[in-house]
Parts: sequence; C-alpha cells; structure tokens
Amino acid sequence: MKALILNCTLKKTPDRSHTEALVKSAVKEFKKLDVECELIRVVDFNILPGVDSDMGEGDDWPKIIKKIRECQIVVIGTPIWVGGESSMCQRIIERLDAMFYDKKLQDPNNGQYIFYNKVAGVVVTGNEDGAQAVHARLFMALNEFGATIPPNVGSYWVGEAGPGPSYIDGGQSSKYTQRITVLMVQNLVAMAKILEATPIQTNLSELNKLYLEE
Amino acid sequence: MKALILNCTLKKTPDRSHTEALVKSAVKEFKKLDVECELIRVVDFNILPGVDSDMGEGDDWPKIIKKIRECQIVVIGTPIWVGGESSMCQRIIERLDAMFYDKKLQDPNNGQYIFYNKVAGVVVTGNEDGAQAVHARLFMALNEFGATIPPNVGSYWVGEAGPGPSYIDGGQSSKYTQRITVLMVQNLVAMAKILEATPIQTNLSELNKLYLEE
Amino acid sequence: MKALILNCTLKKTPDRSHTEALVKSAVKEFKKLDVECELIRVVDFNILPGVDSDMGEGDDWPKIIKKIRECQIVVIGTPIWVGGESSMCQRIIERLDAMFYDKKLQDPNNGQYIFYNKVAGVVVTGNEDGAQAVHARLFMALNEFGATIPPNVGSYWVGEAGPGPSYIDGGQSSKYTQRITVLMVQNLVAMAKILEATPIQTNLSELNKLYLEE
Amino acid sequence: MKALILNCTLKKTPDRSHTEALVKSAVKEFKKLDVECELIRVVDFNILPGVDSDMGEGDDWPKIIKKIRECQIVVIGTPIWVGGESSMCQRIIERLDAMFYDKKLQDPNNGQYIFYNKVAGVVVTGNEDGAQAVHARLFMALNEFGATIPPNVGSYWVGEAGPGPSYIDGGQSSKYTQRITVLMVQNLVAMAKILEATPIQTNLSELNKLYLEE
Repeated sequence: MKALILNCTLKKTPDRSHTEALVKSAVKEFKKLDVECELIRVVDFNILPGVDSDMGEGDDWPKIIKKIRECQIVVIGTPIWVGGESSMCQRIIERLDAMFYDKKLQDPNNGQYIFYNKVAGVVVTGNEDGAQAVHARLFMALNEFGATIPPNVGSYWVGEAGPGPSYIDGGQSSKYTQRITVLMVQNLVAMAKILEATPIQTNLSELNKLYLEE
Repeated sequence: MKALILNCTLKKTPDRSHTEALVKSAVKEFKKLDVECELIRVVDFNILPGVDSDMGEGDDWPKIIKKIRECQIVVIGTPIWVGGESSMCQRIIERLDAMFYDKKLQDPNNGQYIFYNKVAGVVVTGNEDGAQAVHARLFMALNEFGATIPPNVGSYWVGEAGPGPSYIDGGQSSKYTQRITVLMVQNLVAMAKILEATPIQTNLSELNKLYLEE
Repeated sequence: MKALILNCTLKKTPDRSHTEALVKSAVKEFKKLDVECELIRVVDFNILPGVDSDMGEGDDWPKIIKKIRECQIVVIGTPIWVGGESSMCQRIIERLDAMFYDKKLQDPNNGQYIFYNKVAGVVVTGNEDGAQAVHARLFMALNEFGATIPPNVGSYWVGEAGPGPSYIDGGQSSKYTQRITVLMVQNLVAMAKILEATPIQTNLSELNKLYLEE
Repeated sequence: MKALILNCTLKKTPDRSHTEALVKSAVKEFKKLDVECELIRVVDFNILPGVDSDMGEGDDWPKIIKKIRECQIVVIGTPIWVGGESSMCQRIIERLDAMFYDKKLQDPNNGQYIFYNKVAGVVVTGNEDGAQAVHARLFMALNEFGATIPPNVGSYWVGEAGPGPSYIDGGQSSKYTQRITVLMVQNLVAMAKILEATPIQTNLSELNKLYLEE
C-alpha cells in the first residue's frame, strides 16, 4: 500500500516548511502501519498554469499524475495564506480538473475518474485561522475528483487569532493536532484496505451514455 | 438498508419546496436499489437553538437524533440563501456539535461518533450560485462528525447568474443534475454496503486516552 | 450617529455569550467616539424562517428592520459553530434577502437597498478556527445588501487548533483582538461620517429600467 | 483617476480569456466616467511563489506593486476553477500578505496598508458555480489589505449547473451581468471620488504602539 503526500508549501526544498513538519508526523504514522510513503513539494516541480493534463514543453505535471495513479492514498498538505489554501495547492486542483473531459484520466472500462477507489486526506497549517475552510474546499474538490473521504481526515494546526508562531515553533506540542493526525492516518489506511478488498463498481460510462450523450 | 433525507428548506409542509423536488428524485433512485427512505423537513420540527443534544422542553431534536441512529445513509438537502446553506441546515450542524463532548453520542466500545460507518451526501438547490460552497461546508462538517463521503455525492442545481427560476421551474430537465443525482445515490448505496460488510474499526477511545486525558 | 449591534449568539439573555463580551468592547469604543449604540441578541426575538420582509403573525423581524433603518452603522456579531456563522446569523441574512424584490426595502427615489450609505463590520468569536471564513461570507452578503465595508472591519478571536477556552476565558487579554476591534470601530465611524457628508448617489432604479425591465 | 484591473486568468496574452471579456465591459464603463484604465494579465508576468514583497531575481511582483500604488481603484478579475479563484489570483493574495510586516508597504506617516483609501471590486467568470464564494474570499482579503469595498461591487457570470459554455459564448447577453458590472463601476468611481476628497485618517501606527509594541 502506498501513500502520496503532496506538500503545497510555497518554499522549495530545502527551505523550512511548517506544513512539511506536520505531514512528516503523518508519514511516521503511515510507516507504523506498513504504508510506503512518497513526500514531495509541488513547488519543486514546474507545474505550468492551465487546465489540461499536459501543458507541453517543460511541464512537470505528468510526473505527478503518474505518482497519483500509483498510490492508494493521497494526502494534500497546504499552508494557509490570508485564509485560503496556497497557490500551489490551487494549481494542482486546476490541473486535476482535466479529468472531467480527458479520457486518459478516466478508467476505460467504467469511466471512473482517477481518484476512484483511492482515499484522500488533508493536512493544513497556518499561524492564525482558516484550516476548516481549507478542509472544506479540498474535500469538495477531492469528492468531485472521485476520491473517498474517510471520517476525520482533516488534520491541522493553527495558532490563536492574529500573528504568531507557525507550526514548527508553536504547534508541535499540540495534543489535539497529534491526535487528529494519527486518527487521519488510521482512517485513511483502514478505508484504503476496505476499498482494495471491495472497490466501488459504479459505472460512469453507462451514466454518461444515459444523461450526457443523447 | 435505510436512508434518512433531511430537507433543510425554510418552508413547512405542504408548501412548495424546490429542494424537496430534487431530493425526491434521489428517493426514487434509492428505491430502485431497495433502500428504504425517510424524508423529513427539519422546519416541521421544533429544533431549539443551542449545541446540546437535548435543549429541554419542547425540543424535537432528540427525535431526529433517533432517526440518524437508525439509518446507514444520511442525505442533507438544503436551499441556498445569499450563497450559503439555510439556517435550518446550520441549526442541525450546531446540534450535531454535541457529539464531541456528549458520551451518549459516541459508541461506548470505541468512542466513535454517531456518523461513523454511515455514509453521507449533499443535495443543494438555488436559483443562481453557491452549490459547491455549500457542498464544501457540509462535507467538512460531516467529515468531522465521522461520516464517510463516497465519491461524487454532491448533487445540485443552480441556474445562471442573477435572479431566475428555481429548480422546479428551471432545473428538472437538467441532464447534468439528473446524472449527478443518480451517481450520488449509486455511490452512497455502494459504500454503505461496503461499510456494512467491513466497518471501520478505529478506536477513538484509545486515542483519547493517549492524547486528551493525560 | 447610531450603531446597531446584532449579536447572533444561540444563547438568550441573560446567558453568558462570548460574542457579547467581544461586541461589548466594541461598544465601549463606539461610545468614546460619541456614537450611540443599541446591542441586541437576535435569539431574544422571534425571527420566523422565510425570506419575506414580514412572515406574519408572531414575526419579530419587522422590529429589527426598523432598527436597521434608523442607524448608520451595523455590526454583526456571531459565534462560529463547526466553521460557520450561527443559524441565527444565517436567519437574518435570509430575511434581508427580501430587499431584492420588496420595494418597501428600497429607496423610492433611486432604488437603493436599505444598507446603502450605511457601513458594516463583523465580529466573530470561536474557540478554534473559522473567523476569516465567516468574515468572508458576511462581507459578501453585506456587500450585496448595499453596505459599504470600510478597511479592517473584521474583528475576531479564536483560540489554537482544537477544543479549548472560548473568548471570555481565553481571549480577553489578546492584544491582537483588542487592536483589531478598536481599528474596526475607528474605521466604521470614520466612513459613516464620510458617507453622511457625501452619500453615494448611484441610481439603481435607472439601471433596473435599462437592464431588468425591458 | 486611475483603475488597475488585474486579470487572473491562467491564459497568457493573446489567448482567449473569458474573464478578460467581462472585465473589458467594465473598462468601457470606467472610460465613460473618465477613469483611466490599465488592464493586465497577471500570468504574463513572472510572479514568484512566496510572501515577501520582493522574491529576488526575475521576480516581476515589484512592477505590479508599483501599479497598485499609482491607482485609486483596483479590480480583481478571476476565473473559477473547481469552485475557487485561480492560482494566479491566490498568488497575488500571497504576495500582498507582505504588507502586514514590510514597512515599505505601509504609509510612513500613519502605518496604513497600501490599499487604504483605495477602493476595490471583484469580477468573476465561470461556467457553472462559485462566484459568490470567490467574491466572499476576495472581499475578506481586500478588507484585510485596507481596501474599502463600496456597495454592489461583485460582478460575475456563471452558467447553469454542470459543464456548459463559458462567458464569451454563454454570458455576454446576460442583462443581470451587464447591470451588476455597470453598478460596480459606478459605485467604485463614486466611492473613489469620495475618498479622494475626504480620506480615512485612521492612525495605525498609534494603534500598533498601544497594542503591539509594549
């Protein structure tokens, strides 16, 4: 079983990323449950603006699509800037939008989008506010993309109102954040195993024939 | 297998509810799949403001909690007013908040919240805009409450920008809305069956001992 | 000059309201600037569900509409429940929606909605997260209703991630919250005086003739 | 009087941008009112990821900051992708965040952020849903940045639920969108003139001394 963790920090490796510190604590839990993890920073790749599955020369997005195909669990990690997910996070949402019309991102047998029978969770860090709004936005997008959202898979840390320390300096001792992170990982793995044993069989191609192609 | 559909319209029975028209088309699909359905309008009940599981004399909320306990699938239907879910919808979210501290709303064996191993979907109608924002907000809340969100379970209809006809008068012929409603029902039922056969076993009581009770 | 503060807490007077504690610190600042204040809890009134300006027998909403007419500054205070504004807050948004079709809520001379040339601010309290999302939602609604939003008029306090003390017990010493509350009041009063001296003269009736009534 | 329109489309010049078509109809109205307009596509510039006011070599952001300084009216135009503003739009929000700690983006006399005494509006296009959520998010950010939001300055067009034509092909005949766009421009210009004659004088430096520097 494999988990892909997409850290949408604005900071390239090896700069200090608060979100990376929190997703790394998730990685530790995944490993306890024998799940292989790949952790990447999206900003280290050249993800061109656009909404096609391949924007041409220099576009690294196809590399990430390949990684998504090969895992059963996807975790999106993002910092909060002025109450919203990062521009790198919105960039990957935009690029994933291609699955609604690009047949290469749909299962040839049943039309399911590439996140079908994968599970997804969201990890958010910020210094003051906005985590649940980001959870909401990403759960909606992931649901449209075909992912299953198991219970309690929104991990986060934010500090008190106003400017203040970020996660590494202010949040690592938070028992709440530790607990929700462990719970997220346990539920992601439990659900991924369930879906591996008994996948959702819905046939979207048939529905499309009935409703979209007349 | 049983589905509970909570219509959060502002209009009491038997007034015309656009949201009811759309949830009824979901009910029709559930029945094709042999799922028993109970459809209620929350506004027909006296749900007192507050965040406890029982707000005392005259409070009808315990009746709805009982209905939630007895089903495997919950669908929240809501109109959009000025871009957000209805006040009746927010009212039930507030009342469900009690599950985080009221042990009666947690499983005595493992501490799971009452939505664990239930699946949930969201149906939204409006005349101009806001459906995905309402999906987002409700998926986040339902995820916190312990529900599993299967793929593509946000059904909706909204018209073009600005004032215009609502669902009954403008949306019933929408192939998109018909398709997403059928897909929602199929995925809810598929996942409910999967969870019935192989429930998520996460033990929240143990996690609470480790992280919250030291 | 008069300010109306609508506290959308779920708790009736005289129960302890965290949001009331924070709006009261705004009231203190308004008084320093010689602004008369009326502070009410919406939940103390019987605001019927619906979207008309008067929902009939027993409906207290017309009393609140009268108060809105008579002030130059409106502050909406609301607690956060599961990441969103309270059901009482959404209830008043729904009732205000009537202004888009009920001529009684529009200026007979120029069609301006009743919030035109009034200014509005938002005060939010919660124990963990969600203030900026509520600011966003309410600024959007208030903008549609015709209010002017001066700079920096979103006051709030939330605590660190996860359960914890609410404003009265955890936030009253927050310098950030004190500063943004004072700044909110100063900017509301400054802008209200500016609009009193030089009101916006836009003629919506003429626009409606050009675009909506052909 | 000068207006800067930041089109946050993902498409570089001269590719067809639906958002550009709608902001151009706003430009036409601005010109009727003798307001000089500069319309740029953010994606034509190299805006580096980060939250500083200058991210170093190759960063075009300082050029845009200069343009913001020189205008009285800012309009942000953005497409909707999966219910949210574009990554280019979030990118500029992130870069503007620098104003909270970089003194160069604050008035040396009174500490006001660079949007103080400027007015702002938002133009959104999408094919199905999400405009009001984007308005909300951007009004909140702009309010934090110090902009004044006049009444009814959220222009938009979205089509009916589900896939369908975008603005150029489906929305240009919308009377609603034409009306709200004209109203937006009239209110932006009216308020910009009011603030030019009687600017908000709030002294943030003094507040900072009282609340942040003890």
